[in-house]
Amino acid sequence: MEPIDLRSDTLTRPGPQMRRAMADAVVGDDVYGEDPTVNALEARVAEMLGHEAGLFCATGSLANMVGVAASVGRGQELLAESRAHILRSEVGGHGAIAGITSRTWISPDGTLEAADALALAESPRGYSSVGTALIAVENTHNFSGGRIAAIDQLRELRARTAERGIRVHMDGARVANAVVAEGSSFADQGAVADSVSICLSKGLGAPVGSVLTGSRELIDEARYLRKRYGGGMRQAGILAAAGHVALDQNIERLADDHAHADLIARTVAEAVPGAADPGSVQTNIVMLNPGRVGVPAERLAQAAGERGVRILALNELECRLVTHLDVSAEQAQEAASILAEVTEELAAAAG
Amino acid sequence: MEPIDLRSDTLTRPGPQMRRAMADAVVGDDVYGEDPTVNALEARVAEMLGHEAGLFCATGSLANMVGVAASVGRGQELLAESRAHILRSEVGGHGAIAGITSRTWISPDGTLEAADALALAESPRGYSSVGTALIAVENTHNFSGGRIAAIDQLRELRARTAERGIRVHMDGARVANAVVAEGSSFADQGAVADSVSICLSKGLGAPVGSVLTGSRELIDEARYLRKRYGGGMRQAGILAAAGHVALDQNIERLADDHAHADLIARTVAEAVPGAADPGSVQTNIVMLNPGRVGVPAERLAQAAGERGVRILALNELECRLVTHLDVSAEQAQEAASILAEVTEELAAAAG
Amino acid sequence: MEPIDLRSDTLTRPGPQMRRAMADAVVGDDVYGEDPTVNALEARVAEMLGHEAGLFCATGSLANMVGVAASVGRGQELLAESRAHILRSEVGGHGAIAGITSRTWISPDGTLEAADALALAESPRGYSSVGTALIAVENTHNFSGGRIAAIDQLRELRARTAERGIRVHMDGARVANAVVAEGSSFADQGAVADSVSICLSKGLGAPVGSVLTGSRELIDEARYLRKRYGGGMRQAGILAAAGHVALDQNIERLADDHAHADLIARTVAEAVPGAADPGSVQTNIVMLNPGRVGVPAERLAQAAGERGVRILALNELECRLVTHLDVSAEQAQEAASILAEVTEELAAAAG
Amino acid sequence: MEPIDLRSDTLTRPGPQMRRAMADAVVGDDVYGEDPTVNALEARVAEMLGHEAGLFCATGSLANMVGVAASVGRGQELLAESRAHILRSEVGGHGAIAGITSRTWISPDGTLEAADALALAESPRGYSSVGTALIAVENTHNFSGGRIAAIDQLRELRARTAERGIRVHMDGARVANAVVAEGSSFADQGAVADSVSICLSKGLGAPVGSVLTGSRELIDEARYLRKRYGGGMRQAGILAAAGHVALDQNIERLADDHAHADLIARTVAEAVPGAADPGSVQTNIVMLNPGRVGVPAERLAQAAGERGVRILALNELECRLVTHLDVSAEQAQEAASILAEVTEELAAAAG
Repeated sequence: MEPIDLRSDTLTRPGPQMRRAMADAVVGDDVYGEDPTVNALEARVAEMLGHEAGLFCATGSLANMVGVAASVGRGQELLAESRAHILRSEVGGHGAIAGITSRTWISPDGTLEAADALALAESPRGYSSVGTALIAVENTHNFSGGRIAAIDQLRELRARTAERGIRVHMDGARVANAVVAEGSSFADQGAVADSVSICLSKGLGAPVGSVLTGSRELIDEARYLRKRYGGGMRQAGILAAAGHVALDQNIERLADDHAHADLIARTVAEAVPGAADPGSVQTNIVMLNPGRVGVPAERLAQAAGERGVRILALNELECRLVTHLDVSAEQAQEAASILAEVTEELAAAAG
Repeated sequence: MEPIDLRSDTLTRPGPQMRRAMADAVVGDDVYGEDPTVNALEARVAEMLGHEAGLFCATGSLANMVGVAASVGRGQELLAESRAHILRSEVGGHGAIAGITSRTWISPDGTLEAADALALAESPRGYSSVGTALIAVENTHNFSGGRIAAIDQLRELRARTAERGIRVHMDGARVANAVVAEGSSFADQGAVADSVSICLSKGLGAPVGSVLTGSRELIDEARYLRKRYGGGMRQAGILAAAGHVALDQNIERLADDHAHADLIARTVAEAVPGAADPGSVQTNIVMLNPGRVGVPAERLAQAAGERGVRILALNELECRLVTHLDVSAEQAQEAASILAEVTEELAAAAG
Repeated sequence: MEPIDLRSDTLTRPGPQMRRAMADAVVGDDVYGEDPTVNALEARVAEMLGHEAGLFCATGSLANMVGVAASVGRGQELLAESRAHILRSEVGGHGAIAGITSRTWISPDGTLEAADALALAESPRGYSSVGTALIAVENTHNFSGGRIAAIDQLRELRARTAERGIRVHMDGARVANAVVAEGSSFADQGAVADSVSICLSKGLGAPVGSVLTGSRELIDEARYLRKRYGGGMRQAGILAAAGHVALDQNIERLADDHAHADLIARTVAEAVPGAADPGSVQTNIVMLNPGRVGVPAERLAQAAGERGVRILALNELECRLVTHLDVSAEQAQEAASILAEVTEELAAAAG
Repeated sequence: MEPIDLRSDTLTRPGPQMRRAMADAVVGDDVYGEDPTVNALEARVAEMLGHEAGLFCATGSLANMVGVAASVGRGQELLAESRAHILRSEVGGHGAIAGITSRTWISPDGTLEAADALALAESPRGYSSVGTALIAVENTHNFSGGRIAAIDQLRELRARTAERGIRVHMDGARVANAVVAEGSSFADQGAVADSVSICLSKGLGAPVGSVLTGSRELIDEARYLRKRYGGGMRQAGILAAAGHVALDQNIERLADDHAHADLIARTVAEAVPGAADPGSVQTNIVMLNPGRVGVPAERLAQAAGERGVRILALNELECRLVTHLDVSAEQAQEAASILAEVTEELAAAAG
């Protein structure tokens, strides 16, 4: 039996229709700006978010890096939550390449409070001071378990940063999950940020690609930086074609992934109270807390894997699992049962 | 009529067979190292060049940047020819991102003389000195018109740098053209360099992609840097599948591109002596010298474009044209005639 | 009358004895390692702190930058408190030059709790993750008003980071103030950090200079970086001679500065309760809180300046003043009276 | 007997008058712009060169780095001669810190030909191209043996770069030597460059310091960068006072150093033809060529050192010696005799 792979929603593989779209794509050389499928995708996503322009990038990290660097000069600062993907899982590129400095606020459960970010922001005084150029929010917030950044907090942040000349970047790798779960719109999300990166290859199921959106000027700068970072692909329309299909077909169905995640969290929590917190599951990510019931995270991940359910140990105490397009309702049910059983056995042995 | 587009061999569009291969590709998440099509392509190209390992990159610039940065520490130096693509056309990324310092030797016609490179190389004396870590060669040499780096000079360079602990990187964007035109082998090319980047999306016709090869250790470091630069794609096997087709089908036929380039250069030179130098054409690039016959390069490029032949003005005096997979023998003949005519008319008017 | 300048303790000017020492200094070329006065100062400070080696730097920022960069690879991370001088007032150099990434914990009053720092620290999982390489503490903590990092918290931090392979850097620009006020020793401070920067030109009264201390290996790397940053001075013994006098004469007397700071805070708080918090004054820095009594910080700074007492507005609500070597007991008394009066008048007018 | 130290003119030690000036200097905090002695020195040097503003730096490398970085954006390029101090002996800082890219022309004997520099300069075409932002000249040219950049070539370079919007930076570490030897003026030198760095601690004999000059705008940017690089000293007037004495007293006497250099070169060449080339000595640097007479450079340096004359082996074939303020006429005569003898003996043994 093929394992049920819940390590990440980046694992999805394109289906027949998406593959056909890629095979049939009309392409050109995107370095010359001549790939019609790329151009259409960039315009389409920009329009969804109410922004002037878009930029197709091979990865979400690249979209975040050029988006942030287009707004933050070297030595100026980015503020983000302490477990932001930008600071934790992009190989330190923002500092190492773009030379930005960063400070963080701390949200224990990943909930965005605009006031936390704003309290850190500073304007430069004298020429040795570092000024806050950008606040980055992550929607949904990956390492807290897919927590949604509430639209009212985002609006508050937008209003208060605009007054102070501070930009907002949204790492919207999973913003479509937030939109579907919360009932907001992409336009709502675009309205609260100067730049948004949205990933097509996570829940939306495309094999490769993210789109950065923003003002024409910001995107022009990001396009220049994308080329410098080695990200200026040629006939990228092959990949962009998959992005179009992803947007056509895979947004609404994210609700299924959310239901599956909820099911798994509830099943585990019923079996072993404390090992999961169903109340914290808002989208397609579930944090399991084996550490709370005396089970090392690596141990749980390994035991589940042996029974055909692959999940990731994030650290010594927590495992993360992610539902996605390639996990059917039956598989979600089966994964829930297996994880509940395994957790129960290990917790009993540990107890 | 569709124009005959000779601006670059990056403009090729995938044909039906390549598209089918992409549609049928078996894929996985390459960030987890689980894309079998990517893994096979990396191994295949490494084996062609006699190197231990390979790394698939979205662009040739990325392959060059991570290849060079894997060998040159910040503040240490790279030597290259003064018109090297690495220094001229990669948006300054080697300095701006990798923090390397560079010095250049000058070869007026692009011919590689190992002695020129070696004369510049220096070992550090005292802690303020910059040491030469790497010499980069470009095969074929783009901005001199596709000049081949002769294998005997490459061997001389390899022997002399090895003694001194200096690495060699080959920007082999068009190394397949050199191999076909010169009658050397890919193994010959791999034997003279610590790292080689080879582009699949120029003459070889894939839509996107380059492969860097080198030792396991060098490639491991380059893989880490590729992730930092935002180049770690997910189901990249879609693109790698096209790379396999490119290697299967499009190497030997580069000889046709070379014949077409020769034809065009000869035709123009016969019509307007001095406007092209057929003796300098070794592969698929032709440098036209409208400046030598009193015609501004932009003027020639524009006039040719109006008659359906697109070429690039490189500077005030020179135009560049590149033959490729999407230019048939008939189109090459037609382009030759049109360029000869246009040059003749403009030269006459200028005369 | 000369104003009483409390803007910073960097303003001190060398007295006759220090000037004589500079004029008489035996010097050599320190780039060649041949300046005996520099060498002796580096050895002296290293020994004070119980470290193997020292490095004389023209500024505290340079000592911090090369000290941090010697321990944190590009893209790896530094953790610090959110108002750390390293992140707030060194022109973003740690990110812009050394390419490090940073995250911060938040201590509202600047008190160091080892647990806050440790809670943020992370070890890398997988190659995209950023690992914590270094935790920086600031003793005393400038922007919270000269707060001492308690030696027991520092020891706790040292023990827990050592287990995890994380280094500790102390920005000890004013560590001498901490030592004198707390009754710890320099050896106590050195024992809790892998590297310490100590400034000779703040409370200690030298015109120019800081010393970084650490292991021989760390200092060798820092020396190399100092040269790269343009900080390798020639006959620096002129300045180092002043450093020796500063260490000979100006450590114990910091107790006077602390008494003066206390006096000023108490005097202002008695006049206008809330405008200063004497309980928070631990060393030579006083934060005034005109904002709490309805007075804009800039307004207070200006009004005080007009009566001959110069202080800095740090932001809209707070002013900072610093006592030092060039402020006598009489001047401190006078400054206290003037600041109390001015605050009283402005608060009354605002009320 | 104290050795005659000809390793560099950086080795000079301040005399009594210079020491007195330092001891008596009126100082302030230069980070606040309040050091009158620094301010006066910056204005004085700027005026000498006919520039708007000056910036006092602790080292020549720092003056060059901030001067270059103020004119060259990241990823844009600097052109220089292949053995320029900027590229060879500043620890790669221009690439490693400022992220600039560099290319070089080659002048075998260090003579500046404006045409060589201009032939390399390129304007960007398309967004991937690197544009030439700055050409750096070195006057005098250290590693070619103190060669003067002829004022007519500098004027030609100035005229031709001005047309093209390319800036010129002069690494004038030893520009005073050029002025004295050539009979040009500092104003002549300033007129041909957008920025000039001049070193006070080489031939001019101050212990520490260089001054960068340029337009107000360029110097403002350089001042900001100087702070970021950790070079913002406090009461730097101590050092600047020595700079004033250096300018008052030590310019004209450089002619003596030049005469001493000439004497040494002639004496050695007479003893061992080929071991020195007196015709190439233009200022205070002499390149000895022991390699040409069969003597390893290290061997000569060591043997001379054993007889009390210290010189540097630059590589396997060449030694460099530099005359300066601390070498009297008698010592120069003695050094010439000893070097001639030693070279003769070693050449005879080698022959």
